[in-house]
Amino acid sequence: MAVGLPLAGEVLPVEGVSLAVTAAGIKAGGELDAVLISLAEGSTTVGVFTKNIFCAAPVTVCKQHLELDRPRCFIINSGNANAAMGNAGIEDALRVCEFIAASSELRKQQVLPFSTGVIGERLPVDKIISAHPKLLADLSTAGWTGAARGIMTTDTRPKACSKQVLINGSRITITGICKGSGMIRPDMATLLVYLATDASVEKDLLQSLLQKAVDQSFNRITIDTDTSTNDSCMLSATHKSGISIDTADESLDLFSTALNALCQQMAQEIVRDGEGATKFVEVKVQQGRDSDECLAIAYAIAESPLVKTALFASDANWGRIVMAIGKAGVQDLDTGLIDIYLGSVRIVHNGERDPDYHEEMGSEVMQKEEIVVRISLGRGRVAESVWTCDLSHDYIQINAEYRT
Amino acid sequence: MAVGLPLAGEVLPVEGVSLAVTAAGIKAGGELDAVLISLAEGSTTVGVFTKNIFCAAPVTVCKQHLELDRPRCFIINSGNANAAMGNAGIEDALRVCEFIAASSELRKQQVLPFSTGVIGERLPVDKIISAHPKLLADLSTAGWTGAARGIMTTDTRPKACSKQVLINGSRITITGICKGSGMIRPDMATLLVYLATDASVEKDLLQSLLQKAVDQSFNRITIDTDTSTNDSCMLSATHKSGISIDTADESLDLFSTALNALCQQMAQEIVRDGEGATKFVEVKVQQGRDSDECLAIAYAIAESPLVKTALFASDANWGRIVMAIGKAGVQDLDTGLIDIYLGSVRIVHNGERDPDYHEEMGSEVMQKEEIVVRISLGRGRVAESVWTCDLSHDYIQINAEYRT
Repeated sequence: MAVGLPLAGEVLPVEGVSLAVTAAGIKAGGELDAVLISLAEGSTTVGVFTKNIFCAAPVTVCKQHLELDRPRCFIINSGNANAAMGNAGIEDALRVCEFIAASSELRKQQVLPFSTGVIGERLPVDKIISAHPKLLADLSTAGWTGAARGIMTTDTRPKACSKQVLINGSRITITGICKGSGMIRPDMATLLVYLATDASVEKDLLQSLLQKAVDQSFNRITIDTDTSTNDSCMLSATHKSGISIDTADESLDLFSTALNALCQQMAQEIVRDGEGATKFVEVKVQQGRDSDECLAIAYAIAESPLVKTALFASDANWGRIVMAIGKAGVQDLDTGLIDIYLGSVRIVHNGERDPDYHEEMGSEVMQKEEIVVRISLGRGRVAESVWTCDLSHDYIQINAEYRT
Repeated sequence: MAVGLPLAGEVLPVEGVSLAVTAAGIKAGGELDAVLISLAEGSTTVGVFTKNIFCAAPVTVCKQHLELDRPRCFIINSGNANAAMGNAGIEDALRVCEFIAASSELRKQQVLPFSTGVIGERLPVDKIISAHPKLLADLSTAGWTGAARGIMTTDTRPKACSKQVLINGSRITITGICKGSGMIRPDMATLLVYLATDASVEKDLLQSLLQKAVDQSFNRITIDTDTSTNDSCMLSATHKSGISIDTADESLDLFSTALNALCQQMAQEIVRDGEGATKFVEVKVQQGRDSDECLAIAYAIAESPLVKTALFASDANWGRIVMAIGKAGVQDLDTGLIDIYLGSVRIVHNGERDPDYHEEMGSEVMQKEEIVVRISLGRGRVAESVWTCDLSHDYIQINAEYRT
């Protein structure tokens, strides 16, 4: 189950990036579970990673390799997270990198490993190594959608998306794939996300553009408050278009806008495919004094199990929204200035039930698949949005049965 | 459904406290929904209240009345929270107090109002007023268990409990009732809790004893992370036993220990009767540097939907516990010192899977109804516990259908 239609539009190749996917036998049932992404020589790659202190072995190795060299390939497996495995986990991740480096004439540190799946089980290194020749043979610039399928865990559909932008009359492309459906409350980066562009961007600038895009997209979603040990978001610039992104002209703004839009679309797609999701919900808090207070209240609403079960039930139980605002920890808030809207229906005005509000008005909004909950704090000019889904029986079912 | 047997032991009367319960017609279906508690003249009463900034009208009125006078009676209704009603809510609560004061020859501020139930609907003042003569006529020192029944909402069983303690050869009694099953993540006080003792305790001391007891009990439980708008915990000392509790002798320690034990037992009973609960879980974090870091980690585990669904499924998915520790925001933690136990089974040693651990060992613990998850941080001497329950299909069911 997922809310709304899959991401629309063609998934465009990025010159300098080729991808392959196969079933390496890590997941039971012969599903696709191993992906290789190859980057042209000279590509620039940056990443942001989970802040979970129990970060997985591949995250540790990725960060080290990124400091040492320019990545030339990503090896990604689903079905096993290689997390909480201590030194054995690091050794396993390195063995994969070493093998791939040797068979592709690369340095070990040019290979970045990524894993997603069950935490606490030994990585089946041999299965990944055995699958590598086929991956290498199958590399194709048209491999994005297949790769999106190969990194899925509880996702019900692959997530891939492209944007193009004209810079000084030339077209550059940004394409991305991502996965994620549960354990979603990113803190820094999230999930597995692979973005690439044929634009030419210098490393520090690329890093700051990625961080900014992630903060407005993957760091604004929550499915179940839980932050993964394996969250990684990578952005590679292959420079193949010959178009430079520069802080000196409008190219920066055009590129940044396209990248932000792409990330936001992909992040929202993750929420639409959230575990058990039947509703896609934007929680928007406006007229706040600063981002922090807007986000505190938006997350308190978006993460409240009672708000989320009411959304699942299509019940306009606005008392639970009031409760969530009140528990957000914003201490000096004047409740007498607060308005609450469901869609365009004002339910609470100046902290009290709007006299014109009737239950049927709220119910009508709640029947929809896509709902905007809007809170106006009446004390400033800052607005922030967070995207979430409802909490349904299927969430319980999926996570009670995950390892069976 | 609730975990384990109800609170055992006789519910003992407290001299100077009488109680009555009736069905005032606030709840549909003729259930008990109105309670009157009468306190002897000269009684000392203190309270702690929700920190939710959208606190309900009765909470606001209670706090004001407590500052002005010594309470002589509590009027409590279930079925309606009188929350988020603005000035109308305050007026409604005051109307109830005024009526009861007039018919009992009390001052208005000697009456404290309490409400629990649906947020955002007008309090049916007339129903409470109409029920008052019957409540007044039925007052009895044996009314504790009936009153416990009258304050229930989604609770499946009444919660009442007593402790006695010998002080200088004389017996004093502390008895309490409480309610609560969902919207349980107290911050300050919680739920509705009424405690009384026949001991003689001066007001400031009584307040500090209550605060200390609440911090170790009701402020250590979480069912669903949501903090109620109506949480109130009251403690009355009737002085009727003639036994004084004094900071100068051992009476203080004896009384405080009994009060803490009583509150902890009642708080745990709330978790056992948590909405949809099939497991009762203690999350204990030990060898921490301070309380804050122990509690941050304990709550991250106790509130993780992924940990809670694994508990529901009796699945020893310890990777989710690792994930929750990692996301708790304790930044300088050395994961290489961390041990994780399920019951007496050590699963993780020094941050890695214990080589002696086998899945069946964890599964055996997880089959039980009562489970202790223990984390050892290996860097200090402080330990803290938090109590919680699992997240089941029934939680979704109860909260999706709450208003239907």
